[in-house]
Order: sequence, then structure tokens, then C-alpha cells
Amino acid sequence: MISKLPNVGTTIFTVMSALAASHQAINLSQGFPDYDCSDELKAMVNEAMQQGHNQYAPMPGLPQLRNAIAAKISSLYHQQVHPDTEITITPGGTYAIFTAIATCIHPGDEVIIFEPAYDSYIPNVLVNGGIPVLISLSFPGYRINWDEVRSKITSRTRMIMLNTPHNPTGSILQENDMQELEKLVDEFNLIVLSDEVYEHLIFDGAQHHSVLRYPAIFRNSFVTFSFGKVFHNTGWKMGYCVAPEHLMKEYRKVHQYLCFSVNTPMQYGLAKFLETPSHYLELPAFYQQKRDYFLELMKDTRFTPLASQGSYFQLMKYDRISDEGDKDFALRMTKEFGVAVIPVSAFYQDGKDDHVIRFCFAKKQATLEQAAARLQQI
Amino acid sequence: MISKLPNVGTTIFTVMSALAASHQAINLSQGFPDYDCSDELKAMVNEAMQQGHNQYAPMPGLPQLRNAIAAKISSLYHQQVHPDTEITITPGGTYAIFTAIATCIHPGDEVIIFEPAYDSYIPNVLVNGGIPVLISLSFPGYRINWDEVRSKITSRTRMIMLNTPHNPTGSILQENDMQELEKLVDEFNLIVLSDEVYEHLIFDGAQHHSVLRYPAIFRNSFVTFSFGKVFHNTGWKMGYCVAPEHLMKEYRKVHQYLCFSVNTPMQYGLAKFLETPSHYLELPAFYQQKRDYFLELMKDTRFTPLASQGSYFQLMKYDRISDEGDKDFALRMTKEFGVAVIPVSAFYQDGKDDHVIRFCFAKKQATLEQAAARLQQI
Ligand SMILES: CSCCC(=O)C(=O)O
Ligand SMILES: CSCCC(=O)C(=O)O
Repeated sequence: MISKLPNVGTTIFTVMSALAASHQAINLSQGFPDYDCSDELKAMVNEAMQQGHNQYAPMPGLPQLRNAIAAKISSLYHQQVHPDTEITITPGGTYAIFTAIATCIHPGDEVIIFEPAYDSYIPNVLVNGGIPVLISLSFPGYRINWDEVRSKITSRTRMIMLNTPHNPTGSILQENDMQELEKLVDEFNLIVLSDEVYEHLIFDGAQHHSVLRYPAIFRNSFVTFSFGKVFHNTGWKMGYCVAPEHLMKEYRKVHQYLCFSVNTPMQYGLAKFLETPSHYLELPAFYQQKRDYFLELMKDTRFTPLASQGSYFQLMKYDRISDEGDKDFALRMTKEFGVAVIPVSAFYQDGKDDHVIRFCFAKKQATLEQAAARLQQI
Repeated sequence: MISKLPNVGTTIFTVMSALAASHQAINLSQGFPDYDCSDELKAMVNEAMQQGHNQYAPMPGLPQLRNAIAAKISSLYHQQVHPDTEITITPGGTYAIFTAIATCIHPGDEVIIFEPAYDSYIPNVLVNGGIPVLISLSFPGYRINWDEVRSKITSRTRMIMLNTPHNPTGSILQENDMQELEKLVDEFNLIVLSDEVYEHLIFDGAQHHSVLRYPAIFRNSFVTFSFGKVFHNTGWKMGYCVAPEHLMKEYRKVHQYLCFSVNTPMQYGLAKFLETPSHYLELPAFYQQKRDYFLELMKDTRFTPLASQGSYFQLMKYDRISDEGDKDFALRMTKEFGVAVIPVSAFYQDGKDDHVIRFCFAKKQATLEQAAARLQQI
């Protein structure tokens, strides 16, 4: 068989989590919490199972869950989306992204992707026959150079992928980014795929500039979200996609034959949980406290934080000990010092190495303390 | 945006289930049980949630679930598959099928599909740029004419899709089919995609000729399964794919970036449930009783059963009342007589109409009785 992805290996997340397990290292690599999700939410899911809600949900998702999402979007982003035609529940954010690409990208279509990039984006485009057009974010601010974007647009450019808050860097898009984006969408009729799985993990009072706030962008956009990333249950694999009807109609054609529908009792549970807005309104403070605590603990180490305004992640530059690359350094941190992390060069196709390490701070205070103590030894 | 699936509408299953709901009809259309899954299994899932198993499972699936599947395959099909490298857990059987196609099919590749065909097969091939090559099963026995298959093979033929027990017809592959298939795999190096989601729903003491029994076929095959279809929880969207390592390696490259991993607490629950072999060994008798009861109830109706040896489904030919097609007849059955069913012509691209209706008998006895009483009125 001819491989569709000849250059793809195992994801860095699997590699590092496995290495962490085999070296009993503290795992600050793969992005998942080491604390549990809400007991109330688990009880809601169990109640739905016990009540016998165990057969197929409707293909686009449970109506009450889509209604709850539309209400949240209306209150947070002042956008009225139609739950019947503009929201589809998916088995996770990664699936939501793949499906948008599978819906739009024909062989030879170009897709603009910013690096460092979450590691599914490029393979998703390749599997669908598309051509990734890579643009580096500036260093160390990780901002988009819109002139460069404009210079890379061709007649084959079909889509631009965004991610805010951004994994791995924690940077967020600003008002001026949205204005530039709006111009491009307008001028070139680009489709926007905006990965906003960390929407509620945003710090220092900053605003999440969701594409949903901008009707002139949203009209040509897919916006993808995750329940797992925000409600501390990454293992449930629940997420959703929001898009205007003309795009969602095509998206659902792919989705209905890709997995058809999504876990029913979990949809019931999440619908009920969303009825209480504090469940998401309290998230920024909860995560900012973790980030701040981690930064405090890391003060006396070899690591210097870069700005992080959102997400699970804190990037840190380090004083180099030798001329080893960040990948070797990350391996050594895991094996010798017992803390597993992700080298940011893993998010660049060409392995660009700025000597920056990604730490996941979505961990218990005790875990962060223990990790910091070890990191002080380096 | 240029549609990838210009000719695709809403699946017949969604259409008929919605129509059933709006007419308060008894729903024998979409394939799902109207009874609940095991309380024991639900308790096992809940226990995993309560114990805090709510973060990402490993990408290929929970080791204990893959081990349990390998043990089942060894005992039922006398094939040793390696849980580490040859089994991947998926969010349902439909996803397992899509992913196999996305893994193998390059633009222009031909895929042999038998009609009547489960309705995701053709769109799955089209989305991936492949060319469906359609072959009708014989009528009314629904068997494969292997000479015709051979005559349709070209240098572009990459894959042949099988489904046993077969949806919608309930036919099953026989020993001689497997011999013919083995010759073709050998001669043309075809990849086999065998959809065996109804593996345990097989009647009259017949044997399930899983591709897993035939090493010379399996060596080039993807075999897909569903937990939902056999354990009465279609809404959990849990399934798996089995393939030899050289194919599974490529499959996992796609899967790890399509949805990465599958619902963790449900994997824990299913792993534990599979430890008791009677949970699947009792299924053939359970479903045969339903089929037999339904056939008995339908004796005094306008409908004549075709042979069904497996699956949730019973096909019935009917004495035509007028020259209306089976689609119109199925609509009328739902609206006027209160029983929703699927017209088998929906499973043919060209709408081939043999005046056959599909009934799902995975229903409570009372539901089947009520439906039969209504069907006697027609
Ligand atoms: C899907 S596994 C990766 C989790 C994650 O989002 C990350 O670590 O960046
Ligand atoms: C995925 S919805 C369709 C269920 C089914 O398998 C059928 O009715 O044939």
C-alpha cells in the first residue's frame, strides 16, 4: 500500500507521555489535567445512562446540547447562531478540525498554517490532498505578520487555519488581527478554520477574540471547540463545530458518514451541565491561578517564561547548557530530571529550534510543586 | 465552496426516524434497539468515571480493552492478533470504516462495493477521491457473483468492501465466498475492508465467516466491528478495527490526527464486560428469538420474508397494491399505517426497486407485536 502520510510518525504527545510513564517522570508534556472533572457532571452522565439514553443521538447532536451551546455563544460572543443548522456535536476538537478540512479541501488546494502548529493540522491537510503553506509566527511574541500572509495567497489558497488561544505558545489573537483577517476573507473569499478549544482558558482579563464575534469573518468560517479541554475530561472526546448554514450543510454530509453521531449519555450530561453558566465563567480564574502559581514556582530555575495569555501551556526559554537541541534537552529532562515536557521545535516542520520548552500547567498544585523542585536541579 | 459530495442528501436513517417521530409511528427503520443495554455494563462505565478515568486514553485504545478483544478473536476465530499493533479502538463502526478508506484510497483508486450497500460506503470513497465500482448482489438470494467481480477488476482497483452479516439483506458470506476472495486478494493484491459489525447476530447455527479466520485474506485486510450494535448501546459510538501491522501502522497515522483517542470510561467498562464471554456468546440466541418471533407475527400479512441469516434486519417482499415504488410505499406505511421502515431501493445508487422493505427487529416483543398488528391492516 502506498502511504498517504509517509513522513508521519507517532505524535510527540504519545511519545512523551509513554516516556514519562516508563521513567516515572512527572508528566507536564501532553495537554491534559491530572485532576478530575466535576462530580456533578459525572452524575449527570450516569443519570442519562441509567435513564436509558444509550441509543443513537440525532446526527447533528442532541437538540438540548446544541441549544445550550447557542445560548452560551449568544451571551459570551453576542452572536446568534442557529442550533438546528449551525452547530454540530463531534467526538472531540481534533475530529471537528479534521472534518472541516475533509469538507472543504480538494486535491491541490492550499491551506495557510501558522507555525508552531498543533500537530494534527498538517497531516489533516495532506490526507485530504491539500498543500500546507507554512508561515512562522514571530519570535518571541508569536504574532502573525499579515503582510507575509498576504504575500503567500495564491489562486489555490482555499483556507486559513487559526488557533486562539494558541497551542503551544499561549498567545491570543487581538482586535487588529481580526481586522486584517476580515479584509483577507473579504478580498480572497478564504475559508477560515478557527480552533478555539481553549476559549475559556484566557488570562489577565484579556478578551477571547472568537471568530464568532465577527459576522463578516464567521460567514465563511468553521469554529471548533472542545468540552474536554475546558471541563477537565479530555478522555471523553466531546467537542463541536460552529459554522454558517451554507458551510455546515456540507460539513454534515461528511460527518454523517464519518461517525454519524456522538456519545448520547455524555451529550445529555453536558447539556445539563451547561445550564449553569458559572461552570464556564469560573474557568479563566481557575486556570490563571494555576499559571500564576507555576510561574512563581519556576522563578529560581534556569527557565525564563515567555508571555502566555491563554491555554493550558506556558513556554519557557532556557539557558543552554551545551549545544544540544531542544528535543535532546526535553528527553534528558524526562530521563535525568524526571519531568516530561514538549520541545517546541516539534511543532515546526523544519524543526526550527528557539530553545523553548512547553510546560502544561493544568496540574494539581502538588504536581506543579514537585515538578518545580526537580526543575530547580537542572 | 465546491461541494465534495454534491449528490448527498440526509441519510435515509435520519429521514425515516424523523418521520417516525413526527407521525408517532413505531420505528422499525433505523437500526437500533428499543431496549436498554446491560445494567452491569452501565455500572462498569460509571465506576470508571467515578474512579477518575476521564483523561485521554492511549491513541490505539486502552490496553485491557485491546487484550480482551484479542482474546475473543482467538477463541471465536482461532486467529492470534497482536493487541499492541493490530487492534485500534474507534468511535464506532462507521468511523472505523471511513478511516480505513481514508488510509488507503488515493484519488482515482477504484473500490468495489456491492449493492444494496450500507449508505456510508459510497460517500466515504468519494470524499477520499476514490471511484466506487458498483456490483449488484443477486436477487433474491443476495449473493456475490465472483465472475462479475473478476471482470470489474482493473489496474486501478485498490479495495473490495464486504459486509457480513449483511446490512440491509441479512445474508452472510459462505466458505466458498471466502475461497474466491482469497484468490482475488492473492492475484490482484486487493485490500479487503470487511464490515463485520453484526458478527454476533447470526442465526440457525450458521458460522460467521470472519475475514479474521482466513490468514491469507486477513494479511491484506481491515476488519471493522461495533460494540453498539451487539451490546445494545448504539449511542455510545464505540467500535474497533483489526488489521495486520503493516496496514494498522498506516491506519493509526490517520486515526491519531482524526480523533486521536476514544472515550476512556466507556473503554474501561467494555473491557471489563468482555471478561465474561457469555455476554457475547448469548447474543445469537437472543437475536434469533427476536427474528423468529417477528417472522411468526408477520405470517398473516401482505409481506413475504426473504432469507435472513444475520444482522438486525429482515427483508420482506410485498404484494404491490398499485404501481407505487418502494420509497412511496415506505412513506405511506409510516404515515398511514404507523410503522416506519426502510425501502431497500435506498441502498442502490440507481434506486433499483425489487419491492422489498427492510424491518429492524431489534425491538421489544411488545413493539414487534404492535407493529405486526398494524401491518396486518395493509
Ligand atoms: C490529543 S493529544 C494532545 C493533547 C494536546 O492538545 C497537546 O498536548 O497539545
Ligand atoms: C448510523 S445510523 C444507521 C443505523 C444502521 O446501521 C442502519 O439502520 O442500517
